[in-house]
Formats: sequence, C-alpha cells, structure tokens
Amino acid sequence: MKNFKLTVEYDGSRYSGWQRQGNTNNTIQHKFEEILFKMLGVKTEIFASGRTDSGVHAKGQVFNFKCETTLTEIEIKLYINKYLPEDIRVLSVESVDMRFHSRLSVKSKTYQYRMFNGSKCPVFERKYVTCVNETPDIEIMKKGAEKLVGKFDFKGFSTKTFKKSTFREIYDICINAEGDFINITITGNGFLYNMVRIITGTLYELGTGKRDLSSIDEILEKCDRSLAGITMPPQGLCLLKVDY
Amino acid sequence: MKNFKLTVEYDGSRYSGWQRQGNTNNTIQHKFEEILFKMLGVKTEIFASGRTDSGVHAKGQVFNFKCETTLTEIEIKLYINKYLPEDIRVLSVESVDMRFHSRLSVKSKTYQYRMFNGSKCPVFERKYVTCVNETPDIEIMKKGAEKLVGKFDFKGFSTKTFKKSTFREIYDICINAEGDFINITITGNGFLYNMVRIITGTLYELGTGKRDLSSIDEILEKCDRSLAGITMPPQGLCLLKVDY
Repeated sequence: MKNFKLTVEYDGSRYSGWQRQGNTNNTIQHKFEEILFKMLGVKTEIFASGRTDSGVHAKGQVFNFKCETTLTEIEIKLYINKYLPEDIRVLSVESVDMRFHSRLSVKSKTYQYRMFNGSKCPVFERKYVTCVNETPDIEIMKKGAEKLVGKFDFKGFSTKTFKKSTFREIYDICINAEGDFINITITGNGFLYNMVRIITGTLYELGTGKRDLSSIDEILEKCDRSLAGITMPPQGLCLLKVDY
Repeated sequence: MKNFKLTVEYDGSRYSGWQRQGNTNNTIQHKFEEILFKMLGVKTEIFASGRTDSGVHAKGQVFNFKCETTLTEIEIKLYINKYLPEDIRVLSVESVDMRFHSRLSVKSKTYQYRMFNGSKCPVFERKYVTCVNETPDIEIMKKGAEKLVGKFDFKGFSTKTFKKSTFREIYDICINAEGDFINITITGNGFLYNMVRIITGTLYELGTGKRDLSSIDEILEKCDRSLAGITMPPQGLCLLKVDY
C-alpha cells in the first residue's frame, strides 16, 4: 500500500465546490475520483486539506489517497492531468509516509482574498477578483486585522452551527494595495465555513466606515454572526497553499 | 469637433478579431461602435492602431474617434465601460490634437507571444498561452531573433499578399524563459498580417532543431512564406502597447 500526496490548482468558477455531494457530480473531488477509478480500477476515496466552496479557486490545494499500484509519481501526474478538464491541474505528486493525512496533518493554510476597487473589473482578472464600489482605508483595515490574529472562538465569523470546537488560530493577516487591487492574505491553523469571506467582508466594512474597530472585539466576544460583516462573494477567494 | 484617444484591453477568446466585418457583428470594433452610437446618437467610425486577429488579446490597443460632444473624458470612460461586456475594458480616454490618428501616428507597437512548455497548461493562464510539446533552446532562438531586428521586407513572414510595401522595422525582440513559460516580446514600427505568429513559429522551430539559423536569412532574402515556420495559434498573442 502506498500513500500519495497531490498538490493541485483549479479555477472554481464552474464547480459546486471541492466536496463530493449527494445531488451533484459537479465537484472537483468527483473529477479526481472518477479519474482515479479509471487509473486504478477500484473506487478510491481522496482526502483534501479541507473543502473549498462553490466558486472558490485554489493554487495549492492538497489531497491524499492510498492505493496499491506500481505506477510512479510522474506517471500518476501525467495520467491524471491527461484526463482532467482544462480548469483543474495537478502540480505535483509525492509518495508520503502512510501516516500522512491531508487534513489532519495540516500545520497551516493560507488563503488570499482579492478585491478590485475601480470603475470596471480588469479583463484578465475578472474571474478571480471581486469588484467593490468604495475605496477602503487600508490602515484602518490593518488595525482591525491585528485584532483577529491569535487564538479565538471564531463562531461569529461563520455561517454554520457546529458541534465541534470553533476555536481557531490565525497566525497572520497581510493586507496590501497594488493600484486598485486590495489583497488580503490570511494564514491560520484552520478556518470555519465561510470564515475568510466573512472576515474580509467585516474588514471591508471597517475600511469604508460602516463599522468601527470595537465591533471586531464584540464579534469575538459574543460569537454572534449577525454582528459581523457580509459574506464576500466566492470568486475573489483562492486557497494559496497548505503547509505540513 | 473633438478627437478622443482610447486605450483598451480585451480578452479576444470569443471574438472574430478587432475589425468590423460584413458578415459578423462579433468583433471588438463593432462592440465599441454600437456603444458610441448609443452615447452620441450618430454613427461614429473608430480607427484602431491596427487589427488584431480572431482570438488575439490586447492589454493596450489604441483607437480614436472624432465627435461633437460636451461629455468629459471621464464621463466617456464610465459610459462605455458600463455597456461593454466583461471581456473588454476602457483603460483611459484622452482628448488629443485633431491631427492624431491611431494608425497613422504610431511610432511603435509591442506584441507579446507566450508559450508554455509543460505537461499541462496552467489553469489560470490557460486562455492566454499556447502549450507546446518540446523545450526549445532559448539561446539559439535569441540568435535567430537578432537576425530579424532591423528594417527588412517581411513578406516571407506573412500569409497575405500585398500591394503596399511589406518593409517593416523591428526594433527589438526579447526572449525570456520563466519556469516553463517562454515569452517573446517584439517591438516594431508595424507588423504584417500574422507576422508575429509566424516569427514565433519560426523561432520555435529553430529552438527545437527543426531548422537552422541560415534559414532565417533565406526567408528574408527570398520573401517566401513557404520557407518560414508555422503560424502559431492566436491565443498566446497579446498586443501589449502602442507608442506615439
């Protein structure tokens, strides 16, 4: 038995997210499992570092699967890439220790949210940024971001209710403006459902004067979703990398 | 009467090129003229720096038009951008001297051709690069490119026959490799039909050992299209900028 770790990129625009779901085959996970079945002749389940929502992109998603095979890493990469559609690609295949698990072994994950603040979305980036109407104050957004770095109960920044712990640790939030683009890059040990998009929406509202700094503390204290900002649209979000 | 110079970008993937044609409205020129008619109430012809072929992109195409209007530059930009589809965008509008003509006043134009040499096209660049099978020798390509810099009759590098002069001057060809990408950036005072794509095809054949350096001299001497390389596909080509 071998354990393979794959790093992949995808344009999430036309998919119903990462995870295989009962009512649709239009998921990225399904695309991979279909090809693995063809390649290995047996149904093979894959385990990702986490789900990405419908419309969210990835430049460094990671999953693993276990199988009996004589195929080499490079052969697996070529085989899968040959059958994948043009909006999904395998970047690397590594043979790893049997104990490696793409989700359970995660040390940190990095997401980036991209906004564009101009009169019309740039043509070559149009599917990978979210256009916003107002120019936020980056310095105030940075101050808000500082308050979110650390280990907190982030339940107020998620749209799901959970039985498990909603404590997560954010290691870093980097906000930078390049021309009319605003990039928010967030690294943490894990993220709740919609957490990055709600953090981004909250920081945007802060930067555009729709809320003040103390509201960030309040969301963290009261863990109340209704106090946080809007859930930003999926197309501006990209899973950049997963570290182990 | 005023003369406006517009700089625009577009993803050429779904268009039949720049130029308005008798049998199709699916051109970028047509999109602009439709909106100008709506904006000005009169049919208004626009003049581009040159055509781009079906499927070719632009990050800095320039056109101009003359009209009577009280609209300001910024109003014109906002109006046109509002009605353009998401794959075409106005970058700037300038009021210019009445003698300015987007094609006749050109000092130089810069095109870039992008190739990717890897097992599968990168997801986020897939519509803007051409995937090639072999890794060319960049140093030999550079030597071939040097021979093309200068003023020559480039008839052998075009697929059309011309009544007018086929002499053009290439000022610079820059070839660089970034990972599996190969970028060829060409600046000249003008280009014949398909010229950049045929130059790229010829240099690629040179770099992959399918022809030798002396063949470049021969094409320039004999002006024979059949001696030159393939016409590379349009999607890797982009009009970067036009200088006046």
